[in-house]
Amino acid sequence: MSVDPRLSINQATIKYADLATALRVTADAGVAAIGLWREPVQEVGLATAATMLADSGLRFTTHCRGGFFTMPEGPARRASIDDNRVAIEETAALAAAGAPGSTAILVLVAGGLVDGSRDIVGARERVRDAIGELAPEAQAAGVTLAIEPLHPMFASDRCVVSTLGQALDIAADFAPEVVGATVDTFHIFWDPDVLSSIERAGRERRIATYQVCDWKTPLPADVLLSRHYPGEGVIDFASLTRAVVETGYDRDIEVELFNADIWATDHAEVVRRTAESFGAAVSPHLAVSGARTA
Amino acid sequence: MSVDPRLSINQATIKYADLATALRVTADAGVAAIGLWREPVQEVGLATAATMLADSGLRFTTHCRGGFFTMPEGPARRASIDDNRVAIEETAALAAAGAPGSTAILVLVAGGLVDGSRDIVGARERVRDAIGELAPEAQAAGVTLAIEPLHPMFASDRCVVSTLGQALDIAADFAPEVVGATVDTFHIFWDPDVLSSIERAGRERRIATYQVCDWKTPLPADVLLSRHYPGEGVIDFASLTRAVVETGYDRDIEVELFNADIWATDHAEVVRRTAESFGAAVSPHLAVSGARTA
Repeated sequence: MSVDPRLSINQATIKYADLATALRVTADAGVAAIGLWREPVQEVGLATAATMLADSGLRFTTHCRGGFFTMPEGPARRASIDDNRVAIEETAALAAAGAPGSTAILVLVAGGLVDGSRDIVGARERVRDAIGELAPEAQAAGVTLAIEPLHPMFASDRCVVSTLGQALDIAADFAPEVVGATVDTFHIFWDPDVLSSIERAGRERRIATYQVCDWKTPLPADVLLSRHYPGEGVIDFASLTRAVVETGYDRDIEVELFNADIWATDHAEVVRRTAESFGAAVSPHLAVSGARTA
Repeated sequence: MSVDPRLSINQATIKYADLATALRVTADAGVAAIGLWREPVQEVGLATAATMLADSGLRFTTHCRGGFFTMPEGPARRASIDDNRVAIEETAALAAAGAPGSTAILVLVAGGLVDGSRDIVGARERVRDAIGELAPEAQAAGVTLAIEPLHPMFASDRCVVSTLGQALDIAADFAPEVVGATVDTFHIFWDPDVLSSIERAGRERRIATYQVCDWKTPLPADVLLSRHYPGEGVIDFASLTRAVVETGYDRDIEVELFNADIWATDHAEVVRRTAESFGAAVSPHLAVSGARTA
């Protein structure tokens, strides 16, 4: 079957592939785009990574990831902000190296409560403050910071931003081309306000990237690894995808799977299966607006 | 140390105690109230359970639990509705048998998606419909149905009601003495709207019961069992408890712990430790309004 031209493989889906392998298996499968992670890029160095990406002919969709800036002022916070500056540079360079249609989007995961803290409200304020520090540099670099709400089961230890509405409230202080949101089905499908929040995100021009993967129970022992191929779980990709499409979102769509079984599978097979599941569960809903007028 | 007079032990905290043991260890510890579960009540029969409760001298705070009515019309749905009718009867009988100050509150857990369904929106509508069927009978019996939002990690398999705001939206169709909400810190602490939702719940007279337990990561392999003694995790009981107190809530407060380690501990020791942790983490915040005027 043909691969959806809007599919992008997030590199985490083939976590144990190095950059060269990730680019090769993605392109070989007929997928046109890829989202990268910082560690494998840094492993070869940014300049080399950019050249490799350019040679691959793939579009670059997102860089994963920045953030983790919930700590109070001090050396750790400074180190985090500085590291996010590097991530902004990386994002700009990779987007410039990718094929036409590449986007300079840095995904931000806010971070959790620091050890011993119960101050989730304060942690959220520090997220906003950090983005305020980074926004001018992102803007100068032409990079969009994409705040990613993570499922509330990660609220305490990984990401104090739990809903799309909350991400939009933070983003509202900034220009839409500088600060947007990551809309990931896995993290927000449960939200009773999810459809209205997607509509709002579109209206406010904040959907930086749309990412799809599925939710299934029972959760594995490490809940971080509970992401599944689209269609294998309970998420209604029809309603969510239509809501995103109806905002006018026309960019690539990433599949990012954290899953020990998938990580243990041959990389090429994972990409093939990702393309297949995307084609079955997501692609039919991408042209819905057009279909409605037909 | 003295036991807080508003503490109620939810029987699930000492899951493997039969009714007689649960009543005895609770009363022996100097705790004044208990919330019961249906299975151990049914094990001895309702009339006997009511007599045992009366003899214990304990107040009765909630009956756990009804709900689980997300399925479409058919025999399974009818069986669930009928079972909830029985639960309403049980609740009324136990509240009448408990010591003065007992409350007739039936906790409702909505239920998850039925097998093969991805229609979370429809499931929520069916929850509302079921409550609509049960409300007249609850009202006639003098029982409050307390919709419990569960943490979103249970949204697909256990409870499609995930936020206090969502529970209040459902309850809004009914009189406050008939349909309210269960405010459980574990399930809602992560919600960026939690404080405003508690304020709203109080304003709308919907806080049927306040329950406290703590959240800690990493989550255990079975995330259902991840509830901890107050103070052992990251929940800010100060702000949440003050918010509840400021609504005028003056009833008992339950501690309900699903936790394999706690269940494997001697029942009397669990009750003692529950009282101790409640006294340290929750009690100091119960008189906050008074303290402010002092």
